[in-house]
Amino acid sequence: MTSDREGAVAALAYLASRRERIAASLEALAERRGSALERAPGGGRATLERVVEYCLRGKMIRGGLVHLGYAAAAGAGPDRSLGAAVESVADSAALSIELFQAGLLVHDDIMDRDETRRGGPSIHARYADEARALGAADGLHVGEALGICAGDLCYFEAYAELSRALSGHPFARAVLGLFSQVLSEVATAQMADVRWGSAAAEVGEEEILAMYRCKTARYTFSLPLAAGALIAGDEASADALSAIGESLGIAFQLRDDELNLFGDPALTGKRPGGDLREGKKTLLRAGLLSAAPPSELPRLRSILGDAQASDADIDYVRRLAESLGVRPALSRKSAELAERARSGIAALRCPDAAARGILEGLAEYVTFRDK
Amino acid sequence: MTSDREGAVAALAYLASRRERIAASLEALAERRGSALERAPGGGRATLERVVEYCLRGKMIRGGLVHLGYAAAAGAGPDRSLGAAVESVADSAALSIELFQAGLLVHDDIMDRDETRRGGPSIHARYADEARALGAADGLHVGEALGICAGDLCYFEAYAELSRALSGHPFARAVLGLFSQVLSEVATAQMADVRWGSAAAEVGEEEILAMYRCKTARYTFSLPLAAGALIAGDEASADALSAIGESLGIAFQLRDDELNLFGDPALTGKRPGGDLREGKKTLLRAGLLSAAPPSELPRLRSILGDAQASDADIDYVRRLAESLGVRPALSRKSAELAERARSGIAALRCPDAAARGILEGLAEYVTFRDK
Repeated sequence: MTSDREGAVAALAYLASRRERIAASLEALAERRGSALERAPGGGRATLERVVEYCLRGKMIRGGLVHLGYAAAAGAGPDRSLGAAVESVADSAALSIELFQAGLLVHDDIMDRDETRRGGPSIHARYADEARALGAADGLHVGEALGICAGDLCYFEAYAELSRALSGHPFARAVLGLFSQVLSEVATAQMADVRWGSAAAEVGEEEILAMYRCKTARYTFSLPLAAGALIAGDEASADALSAIGESLGIAFQLRDDELNLFGDPALTGKRPGGDLREGKKTLLRAGLLSAAPPSELPRLRSILGDAQASDADIDYVRRLAESLGVRPALSRKSAELAERARSGIAALRCPDAAARGILEGLAEYVTFRDK
Repeated sequence: MTSDREGAVAALAYLASRRERIAASLEALAERRGSALERAPGGGRATLERVVEYCLRGKMIRGGLVHLGYAAAAGAGPDRSLGAAVESVADSAALSIELFQAGLLVHDDIMDRDETRRGGPSIHARYADEARALGAADGLHVGEALGICAGDLCYFEAYAELSRALSGHPFARAVLGLFSQVLSEVATAQMADVRWGSAAAEVGEEEILAMYRCKTARYTFSLPLAAGALIAGDEASADALSAIGESLGIAFQLRDDELNLFGDPALTGKRPGGDLREGKKTLLRAGLLSAAPPSELPRLRSILGDAQASDADIDYVRRLAESLGVRPALSRKSAELAERARSGIAALRCPDAAARGILEGLAEYVTFRDK
């Protein structure tokens, strides 16, 4: 982050500050639920501890956004009787969204055969290693089977926490309905993603944008922000934050595409061009393929999806993306979306000036982050 | 079923009659939720239709037991204001338990590498075939990845339906809490099951009994019966039905062990000894291993887990189980549990004589069924 982006820095500091709080509730959950599951075969405590440790390795952005949505809407809704008591509901919703995310990632790592995640072994990879050490003939398969169960447990625990906390809350049905709707969309989108990865056919820009809207925008940004606002009792703010979250999320994802190719490795910590080498169906890729003149297509196509593509190849694609206007178009679109988010933020009732400031900082962060 | 077991016949007829009703709500769900998921990439309608078709191939025992629990408790609780309106809540709970079961089975088939289920291809096997037809290099893996997502979708849709239907219900928290608790126990037990299957070590009778209690008794019998009673507004009946369900479920599973070795193939449709050949960790197996004299252990051990064991081998184990008293002990225990269930049923308030009769028929069915 360039140091003059003070709003972005403040937004990140806010999310980091929520992390401690979520971590504490995750640890309490492992303890409490570990006891409740003791009578089941297999115990459950060890699995919960492992899942919680996995959550703690994450940035917990989604959980932090629940708190931000709550702070932005608290005191803005018609029902003033919803007071400090519901803050604990926001805590539970933040905890549960981190558990849902853990479950999705555990399953995702099995699908993608990723052995590492969040700076450590993925859940199924660790189970596979343990199974091999115990002499299992097919350790990977045993690890995958245990990983599927561990992911399922995350979902069941997440719903348990969420529905328990929301019991008697006037917007219980709306919050639970929102979680389920968005999670079902994510499961469906994930299937499309698996199919895209296994088929050679190109995917159109509209479809890719719909994927960004679903997985990054609606799931990562809109859901937690809107859930927080509903918990604070303000439906109007929830709707507004949902729209703001969509803009922020797509802007974030477009910047992600851009950073992946143009980012400074010293800041991102990644060798540029990873998405291209992987053959990931990004908007940047689709833009390149639709803008490239026939003369450039053979070389471009040979690089896309080639895990061994050289730095010179990536540099060629970088220049092409610049000269064809693909990169400028991405930046422009990302900036437009951030601007739209800013208008939405300005129109929020949001009695809490600090929360408004953090939201504005987020709009700065999503388009100007450099890592 | 021997024709003189009229109670058992009536219980099966009751469950079959509930099936139509649950099937109709499943089909309505595919239609309604297919529309709601249309904006997500991948649509979701086709997946829902496939999942519903998979549910429809099942016997829907669990869904039927929700209706039975509801019927047994309706009008027995303190809150008479819970009237016909909550019958639709029972419909939703029945639908959602079938969706949970579908999700668990879809994931289970991936873990067990089962290609068929419920008289047709398993979900991931069908996806794998389709991926291969489209030229995917690793069709099985693509099928498994899509199957994991489809199972996840089942859970999300099941919770959505359940929490929507329970909104405003006085026992919403209790019902949602019960579902989550039992499902988490099942996920945990499933992990123990995977570990049992991948390790050579024997499992003790207590642990196997805990597995039967969790997966067959509490999940398949207690959960739906108690959920139905809670929906009807009667906590006392829910507790009683939960205990009755535990007895019925364990009795059912013990009879299952017995039928697997001693059943008449003309009735069960299965070659006897399947569990033994598979090496499944059943109570019958644990009983045999602990009762067999040292002189019989080598032959017995060579047969357990031998997929190629001959019919003569199985016949030998059958005679051993009889002479060592293992089979009589199973039958006795199953009959005792059914008797305990009958006492519980006699003590139920249950104003509905027909529902009481069906419960009694179930107690007859679980111990005397011959297929």
